[in-house]
Amino acid sequence: MKDVKIENMDWVSYHELTKKGACKIILPIGAIEQHGPHMSLNPDVLIPSYIAEKVAEKAGNMLVAPAISYGYKSQVKSGGGNFFPGTTCVTGSALENYVFDVLQAYVGHGNHEFILINGHFENSMHLCEAADKLVKKCAVEGITIKIYLLSYWDFISEDTIAQVFPDGFSGWAVEHGGVLETSIMLRIHPELVDMSKAVDVEPAKFPPYDVFPSDPTWVAPSGTLSSPLKATEEKGKLILEECVSGIVKHMS
Amino acid sequence: MKDVKIENMDWVSYHELTKKGACKIILPIGAIEQHGPHMSLNPDVLIPSYIAEKVAEKAGNMLVAPAISYGYKSQVKSGGGNFFPGTTCVTGSALENYVFDVLQAYVGHGNHEFILINGHFENSMHLCEAADKLVKKCAVEGITIKIYLLSYWDFISEDTIAQVFPDGFSGWAVEHGGVLETSIMLRIHPELVDMSKAVDVEPAKFPPYDVFPSDPTWVAPSGTLSSPLKATEEKGKLILEECVSGIVKHMS
Amino acid sequence: MKDVKIENMDWVSYHELTKKGACKIILPIGAIEQHGPHMSLNPDVLIPSYIAEKVAEKAGNMLVAPAISYGYKSQVKSGGGNFFPGTTCVTGSALENYVFDVLQAYVGHGNHEFILINGHFENSMHLCEAADKLVKKCAVEGITIKIYLLSYWDFISEDTIAQVFPDGFSGWAVEHGGVLETSIMLRIHPELVDMSKAVDVEPAKFPPYDVFPSDPTWVAPSGTLSSPLKATEEKGKLILEECVSGIVKHMS
Amino acid sequence: MKDVKIENMDWVSYHELTKKGACKIILPIGAIEQHGPHMSLNPDVLIPSYIAEKVAEKAGNMLVAPAISYGYKSQVKSGGGNFFPGTTCVTGSALENYVFDVLQAYVGHGNHEFILINGHFENSMHLCEAADKLVKKCAVEGITIKIYLLSYWDFISEDTIAQVFPDGFSGWAVEHGGVLETSIMLRIHPELVDMSKAVDVEPAKFPPYDVFPSDPTWVAPSGTLSSPLKATEEKGKLILEECVSGIVKHMS
Amino acid sequence: MKDVKIENMDWVSYHELTKKGACKIILPIGAIEQHGPHMSLNPDVLIPSYIAEKVAEKAGNMLVAPAISYGYKSQVKSGGGNFFPGTTCVTGSALENYVFDVLQAYVGHGNHEFILINGHFENSMHLCEAADKLVKKCAVEGITIKIYLLSYWDFISEDTIAQVFPDGFSGWAVEHGGVLETSIMLRIHPELVDMSKAVDVEPAKFPPYDVFPSDPTWVAPSGTLSSPLKATEEKGKLILEECVSGIVKHMS
Amino acid sequence: MKDVKIENMDWVSYHELTKKGACKIILPIGAIEQHGPHMSLNPDVLIPSYIAEKVAEKAGNMLVAPAISYGYKSQVKSGGGNFFPGTTCVTGSALENYVFDVLQAYVGHGNHEFILINGHFENSMHLCEAADKLVKKCAVEGITIKIYLLSYWDFISEDTIAQVFPDGFSGWAVEHGGVLETSIMLRIHPELVDMSKAVDVEPAKFPPYDVFPSDPTWVAPSGTLSSPLKATEEKGKLILEECVSGIVKHMS
Repeated sequence: MKDVKIENMDWVSYHELTKKGACKIILPIGAIEQHGPHMSLNPDVLIPSYIAEKVAEKAGNMLVAPAISYGYKSQVKSGGGNFFPGTTCVTGSALENYVFDVLQAYVGHGNHEFILINGHFENSMHLCEAADKLVKKCAVEGITIKIYLLSYWDFISEDTIAQVFPDGFSGWAVEHGGVLETSIMLRIHPELVDMSKAVDVEPAKFPPYDVFPSDPTWVAPSGTLSSPLKATEEKGKLILEECVSGIVKHMS
Repeated sequence: MKDVKIENMDWVSYHELTKKGACKIILPIGAIEQHGPHMSLNPDVLIPSYIAEKVAEKAGNMLVAPAISYGYKSQVKSGGGNFFPGTTCVTGSALENYVFDVLQAYVGHGNHEFILINGHFENSMHLCEAADKLVKKCAVEGITIKIYLLSYWDFISEDTIAQVFPDGFSGWAVEHGGVLETSIMLRIHPELVDMSKAVDVEPAKFPPYDVFPSDPTWVAPSGTLSSPLKATEEKGKLILEECVSGIVKHMS
Repeated sequence: MKDVKIENMDWVSYHELTKKGACKIILPIGAIEQHGPHMSLNPDVLIPSYIAEKVAEKAGNMLVAPAISYGYKSQVKSGGGNFFPGTTCVTGSALENYVFDVLQAYVGHGNHEFILINGHFENSMHLCEAADKLVKKCAVEGITIKIYLLSYWDFISEDTIAQVFPDGFSGWAVEHGGVLETSIMLRIHPELVDMSKAVDVEPAKFPPYDVFPSDPTWVAPSGTLSSPLKATEEKGKLILEECVSGIVKHMS
Repeated sequence: MKDVKIENMDWVSYHELTKKGACKIILPIGAIEQHGPHMSLNPDVLIPSYIAEKVAEKAGNMLVAPAISYGYKSQVKSGGGNFFPGTTCVTGSALENYVFDVLQAYVGHGNHEFILINGHFENSMHLCEAADKLVKKCAVEGITIKIYLLSYWDFISEDTIAQVFPDGFSGWAVEHGGVLETSIMLRIHPELVDMSKAVDVEPAKFPPYDVFPSDPTWVAPSGTLSSPLKATEEKGKLILEECVSGIVKHMS
Repeated sequence: MKDVKIENMDWVSYHELTKKGACKIILPIGAIEQHGPHMSLNPDVLIPSYIAEKVAEKAGNMLVAPAISYGYKSQVKSGGGNFFPGTTCVTGSALENYVFDVLQAYVGHGNHEFILINGHFENSMHLCEAADKLVKKCAVEGITIKIYLLSYWDFISEDTIAQVFPDGFSGWAVEHGGVLETSIMLRIHPELVDMSKAVDVEPAKFPPYDVFPSDPTWVAPSGTLSSPLKATEEKGKLILEECVSGIVKHMS
Repeated sequence: MKDVKIENMDWVSYHELTKKGACKIILPIGAIEQHGPHMSLNPDVLIPSYIAEKVAEKAGNMLVAPAISYGYKSQVKSGGGNFFPGTTCVTGSALENYVFDVLQAYVGHGNHEFILINGHFENSMHLCEAADKLVKKCAVEGITIKIYLLSYWDFISEDTIAQVFPDGFSGWAVEHGGVLETSIMLRIHPELVDMSKAVDVEPAKFPPYDVFPSDPTWVAPSGTLSSPLKATEEKGKLILEECVSGIVKHMS
């Protein structure tokens, strides 16, 4: 039962490990969202979960909480849009309140430091709100907590980008289902990627605004915002190593 | 990628399978909750998830959605109480709204029938509220849906109970962390059970009321409400087979 | 103006009685719900209200607050279902917030102990949530309160059950509008019972799950889940005496 | 069981009476609030309930729903303030949502016309919001409903005021616990009035603003905003007859 | 940049002025609501904003926050009704929560005294709720604040009324879009009044109740509840001077 | 009274202009937030308001609604942080619900197309949620609406950036209170800018994560994220012209 995953521990062992706030709790947060015909619906959950485990193993004083699987509504310009079958998203308030409650329960066990690893861009502001509200509520109750909030791709350096995208980088905005996520999935869950179904698409170009209801013609029929064709396991390895070591460096 | 788990499918495959509401969607809902020193914190998630998969495989026209891991607050008389380290629970409204949104998203894909498999007693009324509200909202929108809500233990017959508890059954109320759940976990996740840590406790006896704040002295220090000592993998197998076939019989 | 009912007191008298938290406040909570063609819609309100008054009279240091009349949605397997004309129920959040606010107002008068006497099974989890939240909010404000939550039928012993159901007891689950409630009403409000309209029905048998929307064919057309024909005032007297003395014993 | 009170009917009788929307449903809404040392805490509930019954009896096609007892927070300038022991009030949202749900349940039985009789000034705007929201929600669902909202004192004519206050009328604003409410209570519940405890106070004079937190020195220590000394049962009779006949005239 | 309007200050200057809670913060709150064919939609915003600035200039230790423009739903008997084109109103909870948050942010800067100047009758109870909740939340956090809530017309004396309405005053209830507001607008924003479009209407007479949905025939087609024809700039000047000096007298 | 601002119109004129959904409604949304010691607190309100008016004037078929002044909490990495005196922000839900209600009211007048011009980055996701919910609610009611959501800076081309930042552009992320906003304010409200107080700061460099509570040492004491020293009115003119013409091109 040696493991960094909280859910796999019995409560007595967990209690021993977390006494006196000895551990930082990592909460991976993702989404169930289409990522093209070549990949499963859960990269936004699996990637931050994988990174969380590796970070916890390296850091030594961190534990990984069960991930939040369902995230905020996919937006056309970052995730293809909420109208794709399989994209299964919740409202901002539902996500915010659920995450707030989960973190508050961990505070109740005596934990004081948290790392939220986000795998789905659209979650960001709602996680920010949950974190901000909990910090304030705890302060009123005389409890000081600290919550780090990060999206793993923000730990990727320009050097790595240059290696991963030797032909030029079109920007994070169009990386949905593209080389970045596909490479990582090839590394950590190759059984969930089928490159034979990968569709070559030009990097998406969007007008400088959003529109509601969404206009499905803004997105390629495959659902990805750029082409995954040049994804490789090696690129995935490179990216993950940088993210893991960067997070460990900043957070432990 | 042949699988009943939605999250492991690509969106095109999922879309093919669910066209015209061809599939019932099973949503397992559990909790992260102490289950004694001999068992991990996640039986309430793993058990309904396992049953869901087996049911879907047998039924043929069902798919399994990613589980809801965090459930409603553990109560002393059914789960030992919300004050145990490791018991990580959310408010009723957070659970209700999150589940509501998740189901609504699946309705948005064209699915019309749902099976909620609950693994944590305390969730029941909040799931009931989510289901009732969604059915009504969909009706206003001109969409007819049907939601089955079940707790897996309600499919266990008196015959099976007699076999599992040859010395007499103390009632479902005190089965938390006892023979029932431990046997099932021994069957499906033996690596998460350590019988050497199992504590023999008398079936809990409670006063005929609840009190807030909870009184921790009502519960055995180990956290289980009855003894898990007589749990066996065989009992787990028996229980699971009955639950799975019962659910398939009623729902397909 | 000698009375245990708060509403009938003037504020100065009430203030005198409750100074220094001298009294426990009992709040009866029920529902407006069909109970068969032979009985009025308010047994779930009148029974806990009656018990509350008798308990307060016996205990000496308790007062009875005005009852909460409208409760959570009737469920098919415990109350016949929310689709019967006359069954007039509210959402979980409306009940929870209303009860929370009422209790909080009594805390504001300096009261610190509360007894919630529930007369409608479906209310239970929502009352639990209101109680739990209030206890926590008060703790943050530096106020220690204690809330007992009970359903009166949990104070009935097996001996009494044997006397009330000499031909065998089908279980609490099907007691809606049956011998139990009818006997009590014959004792406390015979003018609201008309046994000539009582319908003989077999104890209800339900599948091991719930379904939404409800299936009205699961319930007898009369709305009761078992037959009230063997109800008598004597049985009602017996039950009430046991409930009242049990509550007094545990709570004063 | 011949009665205008819904709660006292069995569901079959209620259903017969309300078929095809044949009846208007009257919902009395009040508050538990101090009304001086000479009177119980429930005039705001008892008065609209009494009027509701008389109106229903006269009109013939109306039924009375169980009253809402706990109302919105007492304000200094209309009810003495929310800080008096015994004044037991809820937030605006709790009241609004509870009333909304109750009315919606009656709509579910096929009723289409409602009369809300308010007995507590501070409830008004929250009842207005509940009514407005329900009308709109029903319209979306294709159901046309009509809700009358009234405070009973608005049906009192200048002639009656002249008779009730022969020495001059200080205005509705200071009638809290004064001649008006006391006279009515003397008429309908003399056992809840003890004129020997009535305190003579000058009509309250307030600054032209409100302040939070409330300033208790703005109110007489007795809690009434004017003197109840000249209250009589005859005045109560006069007022009630006018209110009842006025409501019947406008609403039936 | 010398000004009483907070929004026009840089943050360093604002910080200097408000150190140690040196200033009272005035928040004007209005509505966008029709006021007849002769006047713009914003008198309920512009009038309290104007008064706020004059009060702050006179008092010396007050600053004016950016106004809340959108208020609670217009009611037929006080504002003509929510169905007029141009009347642009929000729900009670949206207003309450928005105002609550805004005030809380000013508390966060170290301000402890607030004056809410209301220009739209229908806002009153929702502002009351926001103020009451904030005072209580701050108290739990150990912060003592004080919030004055006023509607400017409550500072108008009977003498002034006699001068403004020499032919008799029909009551505040029907002043919507009439002589009072039109006179003030002629004084402070003559460019937003076009007296050639003013419609002469009799003072509105309403039944002693409200009805939902609203009945548009209760209101004159022009939308005002009395005639604005006798409005003059001089009357506006007189009213404003009395309001400003009255508020300064009571609040500084 | 010729004007594109709705608030300055009388209701009859507004009604004429908006009949049959003839006009798009522009809603500017900003924030009250520190922008350095050299600038007022309201650029995020004034800039989108100015752009809205110019767009409406040019387009011909657009009207401008009163702006939403208070926005979502300032974040350290985009607005300096919510802890600066003068930064006066609301929660996400308060903003979302207020904007939702305001837009819904305009839909109620028969308007079907909306343009939300955002001036405060942190508002984006909450506006997205409000827009998405309203579109769906209207669809259920049988009303088709369309909402454009834009942040004005997304209409600035790379050419313009090259002209505005001849020494190199540090990215939008650090433009808070820098050359961009200061130049625009010099153009439209020079009286609210005092360049003599402008502080020269290096473009902010932030770690690749956020932390709660915020760490004030991440931000320059002045509150800007880059230096405003090279701001000029000419640059402001250039930027505004491009934004206005871009919006007109895309939206009319």
